[in-house]
Amino acid sequence: MTRIRIALSQINPTVGDLDGNAELILGRTRQAAGRGASLVAFPEMALTGYPVEDLALRSSFVQASRLALEALAARLAAEGLGEVAVVVGHLDRCGVSTPRLGRPAGAPQNAVAVLHGGRIVARSAKHHLPNYGVFDEYRYFVPGDRLLVVRVGGVDIAIAVCEDLWQEGGPVAAARAARVGLLLSINASPYEVSKDDSRLELVRRRAREAECALAYVNAFGGQDELVFDGDSLIVDAEGRVLSRAAQFREELLIADLDLPERTVDDSVYSAGDVVADGLTIQQVIVTEHAAPVPAPAVEPSIAPALSDDAEIYGALVLGLRDYVAKNGFQSVLLGLSGGIDSALVAAIAADAVGGANVYGVSMPSSYSSEHSKDDAADTAERIGLDYRQVPIAPMVDAYLGALGLTGLAEENLQARVRGTTLMGLSNQEGHLVLATGNKSELACGYSTLYGDAVGGFAPIKDVPKTVVWRLSRWRNAEAERRGEVAPIPVNSITKPPSAELRPGQVDSDSLPPYELLDDILDDYVERDIGRDAIVAAGFEPAMVDRILKLVDTAEYKRRQYPPGTKISLKAFGRDRRLPITNRWREGG
Amino acid sequence: MTRIRIALSQINPTVGDLDGNAELILGRTRQAAGRGASLVAFPEMALTGYPVEDLALRSSFVQASRLALEALAARLAAEGLGEVAVVVGHLDRCGVSTPRLGRPAGAPQNAVAVLHGGRIVARSAKHHLPNYGVFDEYRYFVPGDRLLVVRVGGVDIAIAVCEDLWQEGGPVAAARAARVGLLLSINASPYEVSKDDSRLELVRRRAREAECALAYVNAFGGQDELVFDGDSLIVDAEGRVLSRAAQFREELLIADLDLPERTVDDSVYSAGDVVADGLTIQQVIVTEHAAPVPAPAVEPSIAPALSDDAEIYGALVLGLRDYVAKNGFQSVLLGLSGGIDSALVAAIAADAVGGANVYGVSMPSSYSSEHSKDDAADTAERIGLDYRQVPIAPMVDAYLGALGLTGLAEENLQARVRGTTLMGLSNQEGHLVLATGNKSELACGYSTLYGDAVGGFAPIKDVPKTVVWRLSRWRNAEAERRGEVAPIPVNSITKPPSAELRPGQVDSDSLPPYELLDDILDDYVERDIGRDAIVAAGFEPAMVDRILKLVDTAEYKRRQYPPGTKISLKAFGRDRRLPITNRWREGG
Repeated sequence: MTRIRIALSQINPTVGDLDGNAELILGRTRQAAGRGASLVAFPEMALTGYPVEDLALRSSFVQASRLALEALAARLAAEGLGEVAVVVGHLDRCGVSTPRLGRPAGAPQNAVAVLHGGRIVARSAKHHLPNYGVFDEYRYFVPGDRLLVVRVGGVDIAIAVCEDLWQEGGPVAAARAARVGLLLSINASPYEVSKDDSRLELVRRRAREAECALAYVNAFGGQDELVFDGDSLIVDAEGRVLSRAAQFREELLIADLDLPERTVDDSVYSAGDVVADGLTIQQVIVTEHAAPVPAPAVEPSIAPALSDDAEIYGALVLGLRDYVAKNGFQSVLLGLSGGIDSALVAAIAADAVGGANVYGVSMPSSYSSEHSKDDAADTAERIGLDYRQVPIAPMVDAYLGALGLTGLAEENLQARVRGTTLMGLSNQEGHLVLATGNKSELACGYSTLYGDAVGGFAPIKDVPKTVVWRLSRWRNAEAERRGEVAPIPVNSITKPPSAELRPGQVDSDSLPPYELLDDILDDYVERDIGRDAIVAAGFEPAMVDRILKLVDTAEYKRRQYPPGTKISLKAFGRDRRLPITNRWREGG
Repeated sequence: MTRIRIALSQINPTVGDLDGNAELILGRTRQAAGRGASLVAFPEMALTGYPVEDLALRSSFVQASRLALEALAARLAAEGLGEVAVVVGHLDRCGVSTPRLGRPAGAPQNAVAVLHGGRIVARSAKHHLPNYGVFDEYRYFVPGDRLLVVRVGGVDIAIAVCEDLWQEGGPVAAARAARVGLLLSINASPYEVSKDDSRLELVRRRAREAECALAYVNAFGGQDELVFDGDSLIVDAEGRVLSRAAQFREELLIADLDLPERTVDDSVYSAGDVVADGLTIQQVIVTEHAAPVPAPAVEPSIAPALSDDAEIYGALVLGLRDYVAKNGFQSVLLGLSGGIDSALVAAIAADAVGGANVYGVSMPSSYSSEHSKDDAADTAERIGLDYRQVPIAPMVDAYLGALGLTGLAEENLQARVRGTTLMGLSNQEGHLVLATGNKSELACGYSTLYGDAVGGFAPIKDVPKTVVWRLSRWRNAEAERRGEVAPIPVNSITKPPSAELRPGQVDSDSLPPYELLDDILDDYVERDIGRDAIVAAGFEPAMVDRILKLVDTAEYKRRQYPPGTKISLKAFGRDRRLPITNRWREGG
């Protein structure tokens, strides 16, 4: 056994920002080295950000990633950090990249490198490529076929990339067969509700299977619809948690591990030998002897787990904050209706970018109730945002005079005048417009194209209405706990939801009660249960048919909605893609 | 040698319309049988339509497809068509469908069945699953691992599905090893410019490789952004074309083929034997002896090839026609600016749904020139569409009074007032709104979100501006050739393009000449060439940088644009997906 100090650097890279990401990696390596770590691991694709989507198919981008990696290795050494083994995810390409039908252009790979002494001392690539849910890695990458084992401080460390841990066999089986001392897994693993629990169980199980300690480092931060939640952790060979980082924020998780030395028998394996599941082994000696670990020993730290509500709210805040900042905006603008959706979005926005950077506009029509206007103003005051009122009657009247619209066309017109108003202010003043629709509405197409669907980002797009209420109550309770003003007016939480596009309109004119609706949507959308099985579970057939028909015919509207932070298994947009032209009607 | 009469039924299924598609298959089988065919082949996924996207993951839909297939077999026999061997693509599932991480839920397969005597006598599944370009089949299907060989009329016929033909090895190699008499390939192969040429070369080469005749049947019709172009064909074992169907229309291609009998040696292969590339063989005897082929012999027919312009125009008309009809619309509505884009879209729309079902609206502002208004009216008259004028000043003034917008915000406002006007009329009158933007504009983000980007379909979304002009001239020449009125005013073709959102504005204020722009876009977008290589090819560096920066930063706008018929290798939306949050700037 030898003691080694390792650091898992839970960072927030930006897609495409090679210079910025390299700078971040350099800075955290400096910190880790300052605290005595001899190995620092960064997340999957830390150098490029993740996912890079079609950028992987641009050879100029792949080449830029390769050059940035070399420059990073040299820079680390130049700054006196050459003795630290730095494990970093990046975009690489296969040695042989002959074009072939069905193989991504340029043969890109989701790769990992070990930097040491100013050089790239080892390279490898992800073996298991996920191609489901949010992942399309068969489109983008050529799978790796080796198990990389680096000896650092005398410890044989196998390196795997993300999905390599989730699939049976492959690198985990190979790590066991090779008898490594530590399995290091680098990840860009997106958030979903309760994923921290399944991830923990997985990491514990894989450690037992691999018969060695396991260090898991994840990115954190928002990237379009994805939020990476961090939650990096280290378990021992029995699956006991030694250290665990927090979710949704930066952390440099440092730990002293006592690990077996030189466990991979060089007389058994030599380069190119198949070790398990068709994977060949590639062994690289980085350092044969451990650098002395400076006293005092690092105290193990285990971040407390968040409640489900705190976790979801944290994901929504981080997703919005990064979308705004990484796209170069400083401020956001939204319509405040006095309803619960816009109030919650305003609260999330204030937590993400600061209340002073949130601009709220009340846009009352002749159908708007007094309480709506009051609640909108109340929200603005509670949150401390920039507030103005723009009555929409003059614009609506101009259209009605020219076009003579009635009924649904007139209802939609009001929403579109509001959308055009927000976009006009956005163009004039430079704020990012936020759409405030929730998942229940989107599922049913209960929204107006180019109306309330206007915006650059939709923070609660993946949040069902019942969870909108729950999060609002949670956020107010949090404020109370901290002795702060509750951001959301109680009246917005308790009153019956209404679009207020005609006199006396309430959501329940068009939709069943949200508790019921969300239950059926969960069955149909999230769990892909068929109509007959939903009815068999006890829901009223006519109601089920009505909802399913709404869901089946709203695909176009959903596709035109702005992106928003994904918190579920089947978020609209990212995960679930139906044909627009589609005659299949599951409902009777 | 024996003579067999086969029919390739080039049909236009609708996604999800199991009943309608079954009816279509039944009708065409009846026709083919009436003309003496003993085998009729339908396209890939003919029963469900293609692509079904996430419907493949709904077990209720997979089950419905399976039941529809059984019902179809029974119905064929009930109608006296049981003696015809019917080859039909459908959605099936693996026998063993245990859930497994990374494998699509329910283990769906892109399958092919042979119906005979009222039963499903053979089933198989696509082996090579494409996962590039417009295809995501690794997400949706479990690959098949067998070569299906059916003996019909004494001829051993191997059946392959689409990509099985495009990839080296696999079913083609297995068909050769098994020594079949005919290779039958069923397809849903989307159109791209010149794909008919590459498809012809492929089919000829594969016939020579398989050492047997090859019959290739393709679907035709529009499905969201895809157009299937038909072009079914039959070649002999030397790759000589025997028969070929037209593009973009229905056809029942019937041919008499003289083919070797009983070439697969049953003493060599039995079920489950690996025949090549890991594929096992599955032999099914349908009929040992050929039904007599009724006289007279079928004259081979080879449809004349279309010019590139005729082909593109045909794809655009079919794509629009099917999008309108299959989504249940009867009419379309578009803004007529007097410019070339809206004039071409109006001409395409009239060819797709009839001039009487096209509604044009001229929406002049104070910046609109007289010639614009005249050209818009002229277009309307030439095409015979429903025409009205709605001046936008009252609405624009109402917003300006309320919001005080200036500069770009005021320019965008005009476009948005037009978008809201079109959507209002659409909601009131029930027309599908067409967006009229072209690919060059979209590439550069030269469009207004919720303004000119409004609509349900964008017919020329994938057509570069230089091709817009070319197609307009071609369509006018076609009219002349047929002695009809040219649909597009010459003035719309020859005048300098302008958005007319401020006094004297022309496109060349913001964009380089379109000839130059389209060349650079072709390099950067279509061929993924990097900035340095484009500059090295002789383009001015500052110009290249400027264009690339526009392209790199317009992803959000492109994603919000309506779908439109794809005619190129890299259409925006369907094929090319960049991160929105992305700091990579290829331009200097």
